[in-house]
Amino acid sequence: MSFADQATAAQDAARSLATASRALKDASLHAMAEALLDARTEVLAANAADVARAQEAGTAPALVDRLRLDAQRIAAMADGLRQLAGLADPVGDVVRGWTNPNGVQVRQVRVPFGVVGIIYEARPNVTADAAGICLKSGNAALLRGSSSALESNRALVTALRAGVTRAGLPADAVQLVEGGREVTAAMMAARGLVDVLIPRGGAGLINAVVEGAKVPVIETGTGNCHLYVDAAADHDVALALLLNAKTQRPSVCNALETLLVHADAAPTFLPRALQALAEAGVTVHGTPAVQEFSAAVVPATEGEFDAEYLTLDLACDVVPDLDAALRHIRAHSTGHSETVVTTNLAVAERFTAEVDAAAVLVNASSRFVDGGEFGFGAEIGISTQKLHARGPMALPEMTSTKYVLIGSGQVRG
Amino acid sequence: MSFADQATAAQDAARSLATASRALKDASLHAMAEALLDARTEVLAANAADVARAQEAGTAPALVDRLRLDAQRIAAMADGLRQLAGLADPVGDVVRGWTNPNGVQVRQVRVPFGVVGIIYEARPNVTADAAGICLKSGNAALLRGSSSALESNRALVTALRAGVTRAGLPADAVQLVEGGREVTAAMMAARGLVDVLIPRGGAGLINAVVEGAKVPVIETGTGNCHLYVDAAADHDVALALLLNAKTQRPSVCNALETLLVHADAAPTFLPRALQALAEAGVTVHGTPAVQEFSAAVVPATEGEFDAEYLTLDLACDVVPDLDAALRHIRAHSTGHSETVVTTNLAVAERFTAEVDAAAVLVNASSRFVDGGEFGFGAEIGISTQKLHARGPMALPEMTSTKYVLIGSGQVRG
Repeated sequence: MSFADQATAAQDAARSLATASRALKDASLHAMAEALLDARTEVLAANAADVARAQEAGTAPALVDRLRLDAQRIAAMADGLRQLAGLADPVGDVVRGWTNPNGVQVRQVRVPFGVVGIIYEARPNVTADAAGICLKSGNAALLRGSSSALESNRALVTALRAGVTRAGLPADAVQLVEGGREVTAAMMAARGLVDVLIPRGGAGLINAVVEGAKVPVIETGTGNCHLYVDAAADHDVALALLLNAKTQRPSVCNALETLLVHADAAPTFLPRALQALAEAGVTVHGTPAVQEFSAAVVPATEGEFDAEYLTLDLACDVVPDLDAALRHIRAHSTGHSETVVTTNLAVAERFTAEVDAAAVLVNASSRFVDGGEFGFGAEIGISTQKLHARGPMALPEMTSTKYVLIGSGQVRG
Repeated sequence: MSFADQATAAQDAARSLATASRALKDASLHAMAEALLDARTEVLAANAADVARAQEAGTAPALVDRLRLDAQRIAAMADGLRQLAGLADPVGDVVRGWTNPNGVQVRQVRVPFGVVGIIYEARPNVTADAAGICLKSGNAALLRGSSSALESNRALVTALRAGVTRAGLPADAVQLVEGGREVTAAMMAARGLVDVLIPRGGAGLINAVVEGAKVPVIETGTGNCHLYVDAAADHDVALALLLNAKTQRPSVCNALETLLVHADAAPTFLPRALQALAEAGVTVHGTPAVQEFSAAVVPATEGEFDAEYLTLDLACDVVPDLDAALRHIRAHSTGHSETVVTTNLAVAERFTAEVDAAAVLVNASSRFVDGGEFGFGAEIGISTQKLHARGPMALPEMTSTKYVLIGSGQVRG
């Protein structure tokens, strides 16, 4: 089937989904979970083939690990689908409403986007997650996974579609998009067929989609996140946040990448911080002002402060004041999550007002910037753009709205 | 100054605007209104030059009329700016907020986009409107007007900037972007410099921006709007809505372009409707089923049902049932405003649920789909896309949000 045919089939399915009741969508999610567990053997066999192919191709072990499925990961996907069934349905929510002086009633109501395209890398769990989130929010999903996960994704999508059909919704609500680069290009150009594109993956993938797409894109999160330790700061708090944000899960977008320390705090804070970081296995890439405090600090190279390491590495600098910290963040931030540690109210106010990011934090770990931690129950990603959604994107962010006007013959004078 | 320099200056101005108080912004809007009135002579002289140039170039009279300013139009622009000062400031609104179980307080707060680019055609009043709406919502405006209005826009922007400065905000909050097509291209490619682009004008301009831009775009409104008269409909209501939506102001995007009549209603409704339309000076372009009812009906040609006339023309067809009407609308709608006239609740429910448009109306004129009629006070346009804003876009739609998290040392476990 050509991409255009798939997209047309998705549009037809989207029309059914748009008016499907929550009960029907939830029954589908439970059926998808069951079908996934039933297909465990086929999915694991397909995944083993993908893993073998990746290993033969000399793929890095970390990437192979992302690709690998086991019974536990499949169970986690099924659990995720069941949890979605327990969440509120955003579709039909009345965002606001009023009655005009002439008696015309106006309601702004949440409706699905229609057809959502997800372009992602080699994590097969995204296949089930994205399909579930799209279905619950009433959107048909066109899943464009990585070729390295093709066998796994085929097996997963076959199972998911069986579940969707069993519950009485059209199978084409969930489709895998196969083919070469020309198919990705067609997907990005498909104005009128695809309503929204969401890239999920590394900076390269996201940039390629944002630059190339004619379809509206929701840009999700690369995070070059900063922690600024102010002159007036509780050093115990600063140390706890630093270690948590850097080391609790270094590979995610809300992990810390750069530490900035006020010059007045540096002589007391940096020796403690550098020792604790070294003990935690973190390599610090610092400017000469930082190197002064520890021989273990590696000189920061050109471009160091723009790196999103996603590893146990940290860039570090000493700044003369808050203005310099704000300038540094402005120059290097990707607009994800930025943190200040301070006891000074005026500093906290300026930092939160002036830093332009999806999230700004005072005395709390950037690891909290997450749909799960926000109590959203599910997230499709963390948006770092300013249109439509910014920050963790949950089910309501996967919808648009429509105005419904009810009159009794009113005309405009 | 190069476009990149202008955009950088706009970013600097946007930082001041983002933290400017409502009082300061409102004082600016009043000063802008005053400065505009003070500069009346210069603006009218500049406009006369543009008008003379357009007439020499043989521009159509309707377009020259759009370009032409007079004392009344300048007064209307100044009034518009003063009215903006009276509207609530969306910036700083807390959209929602909660306290996490661990005590971290989370607030989602409205913030300006930053730098907004407006690309528009030869209506100089857009210059003042867009500058005012951007300033009130805390955004710096890069105004890319038509070369045919260049002298008028220069005079207007000079006055507006004088007002902005007089109130104490940076002049670069409002800038005119001059130069050839390569400047428009630079503006559309300016990721990281321009936060949002809003094209205002005809379908050609809007499509060029949507197709060409790498910066996120908010697509505003072409409207191929339909009125469907159901089998069960009050024909007096249908006739009133038809005439109002088609003739009250034919040149705007919420005006009616296509009439669809259920076959059962056609023999009684169409003769009345066609006569009333003829009396109102409307040319009806109909299928053979419509031509049956009046010799004045012009045969509908290929593509007739995709025309956004914006004139006293109307496409018309007879449909066998609601499903056929829904299919017709699906095939030809631009997703702006779609109306059903019916007394049947089930028909009203299906129409509002299944028609995919910014606004769906039951027994009310599509002319009500307008920021002013919605009580919004000001609008930058009517969005026909599904991301971020759909329908009339007022001040809150000119903002993004930011999450602010306040803790006391919490880390993620």
